[in-house]
Amino acid sequence: MEKIPILKLGDLLLVSIQVDMHDRLALALQDDLTGQVVKHKARGVLIDISALEIVDSFIGRMLSNIAAMTRTLGAETVVVGMRPAVAITIVELGMALNDVHTALNVEKGIALLESLIREREAVEAHEGPQP
Amino acid sequence: MEKIPILKLGDLLLVSIQVDMHDRLALALQDDLTGQVVKHKARGVLIDISALEIVDSFIGRMLSNIAAMTRTLGAETVVVGMRPAVAITIVELGMALNDVHTALNVEKGIALLESLIREREAVEAHEGPQP
Repeated sequence: MEKIPILKLGDLLLVSIQVDMHDRLALALQDDLTGQVVKHKARGVLIDISALEIVDSFIGRMLSNIAAMTRTLGAETVVVGMRPAVAITIVELGMALNDVHTALNVEKGIALLESLIREREAVEAHEGPQP
Repeated sequence: MEKIPILKLGDLLLVSIQVDMHDRLALALQDDLTGQVVKHKARGVLIDISALEIVDSFIGRMLSNIAAMTRTLGAETVVVGMRPAVAITIVELGMALNDVHTALNVEKGIALLESLIREREAVEAHEGPQP
């Protein structure tokens, strides 16, 4: 397994993380995901972590980085499928998932992304060139 | 990683296979997937194998079995994301992917599933109770 597949669903990208992330794989995912956001002009990214039993500070930082990178490219990121035990650990360890939106599952994640995208488009329209 | 996540998208289920399948994991996936089809009354199953570099006869049989099982429960299965090298191997080795529909990617897979579901509903309506 040299890389994590990125699935295209309309103008969203879906990534399901199922394997232990190490440095190289995390970097490859960041590269790949930012590349795909640009290639497909994606407006949103869904990251499913339902397979992860542990989210440590390394994974947390990776998720924050991906959210910040995709936002710079015009796409919002929502992390879905977090297990209850993972949510407990994140709060107890005081991990800051900066800028990372979360939702219960893929369907709620898609709904959240749609509202984030609409919000962003409203801001962009407002900031657009004046007549 | 004790099991492969199954993501719900409307009345479809999406599975992305990223790890080497062994007997126990394949059985767990079959159990889990058939359970989810019943639980969510799913009409279609998408299996993404874009991460797999090799599809051997074990994986081929598992895909055929899943397709047959889900069909018995009223859901069609489409395998998506097959790599060119995998397609070559499957044909050269004469592997029979019985009953397994395939499509290039998730989006084309969803379109194929929708037409298979419509076809099936038409047959079911035709075979339904007579007035």
